[in-house]
Amino acid sequence: MTGRLIGVGVGPGAADLLTLRAAQAISGAAVIAYPTLAGAASFARGIVADLMPEGCEEIVMDLPMTRDRAPAQAVYDDGAARIAGVLEQGCDVVCLCEGVPLFYGSFMYLMARLRGRFAVEVVPGVTSVTACAAAARMPLVARDEGLVVVPGPVADDVLRARIDGAESVAIMKVGRHLGRIRAVIDAMGLTDRAVFVARASLPDQVVVPLAGAPDE
Amino acid sequence: MTGRLIGVGVGPGAADLLTLRAAQAISGAAVIAYPTLAGAASFARGIVADLMPEGCEEIVMDLPMTRDRAPAQAVYDDGAARIAGVLEQGCDVVCLCEGVPLFYGSFMYLMARLRGRFAVEVVPGVTSVTACAAAARMPLVARDEGLVVVPGPVADDVLRARIDGAESVAIMKVGRHLGRIRAVIDAMGLTDRAVFVARASLPDQVVVPLAGAPDE
Repeated sequence: MTGRLIGVGVGPGAADLLTLRAAQAISGAAVIAYPTLAGAASFARGIVADLMPEGCEEIVMDLPMTRDRAPAQAVYDDGAARIAGVLEQGCDVVCLCEGVPLFYGSFMYLMARLRGRFAVEVVPGVTSVTACAAAARMPLVARDEGLVVVPGPVADDVLRARIDGAESVAIMKVGRHLGRIRAVIDAMGLTDRAVFVARASLPDQVVVPLAGAPDE
Repeated sequence: MTGRLIGVGVGPGAADLLTLRAAQAISGAAVIAYPTLAGAASFARGIVADLMPEGCEEIVMDLPMTRDRAPAQAVYDDGAARIAGVLEQGCDVVCLCEGVPLFYGSFMYLMARLRGRFAVEVVPGVTSVTACAAAARMPLVARDEGLVVVPGPVADDVLRARIDGAESVAIMKVGRHLGRIRAVIDAMGLTDRAVFVARASLPDQVVVPLAGAPDE
């Protein structure tokens, strides 16, 4: 029997926004894998650190800070090979995913490399989209309305096209793109309807009208 | 001190997909409110029944089976008044929400009626969108891709417009609209890329290519 690759969503940041299933998977794990970015601490690991069993093995995949695909692919190749080595010994590997697996993030790249040979389970979690709505106490969609989720790094014209005609829009991964995104929303006359949320569910959570968002 | 209105997402169906925070709120609740539809059992209550304290008070808001707004509004008016009566006595009220509060569903209507007078907290949960992706082990979006969420009951031309040009689409609340939705997707030549998921995370979960979805 080979082990299972288990992708576990750890939610937006607060430790008690883990699901019961995620908490159980992590607290019972012998091997836990997660990506890091350019050597920085893993946000996902930080959320669940208190749940991780003492002495569990950690498989760290350190991604380079570049939008080129090749270097990241090499990291996933190497990480998948290390994970496969554990799975072949019959041991499960829990892979930590910020927010939700398969909704952005790196788990899909590991799954693509390993699903042919090993069983894969996915534990969904709380996305930042719903955590932001909760933080702002702002309904996302009602009745027959649709929701558009778009990443902040897309080009201005793409962002404008996605927002245009949408009933509700969530822009993710805003970060250093805030000024540019705000200019697009402003030019569309929608600033008064927009709310800015950062670090949803964390102690230093920010919820302000977009017009009052800090220039970071 | 008045009580707090706490909207709690109970997730897609599996009891262990509740968050730790949701489980704690429910198991410590003295009063729990939830809507029902035309006298049918509450799906949300069923998910958390084992967590509800013995003898806790239940506030049931029974919605009529109609798309007219007025009868439902009267039910929310009455429910909000009953909830307000409890909050005024300094007791919190936990309101159960299928999936996630503020992402469709009725919590927003209660919040709108009560937020001016009482503190409101929202506990986000696992949406059916991410639960379906987990069930199908199907990535929703990667990198700069956007996601469009659209409810199945919208008119065909609206559905077509939402799908057209989208990188990834999740159609919710399919139910009896499956045949119509499938015809739209078929006419757009996208059937081969579509997966049908029903009752995600439940023991009788269905995951099949759209072409093989049962005609319900």
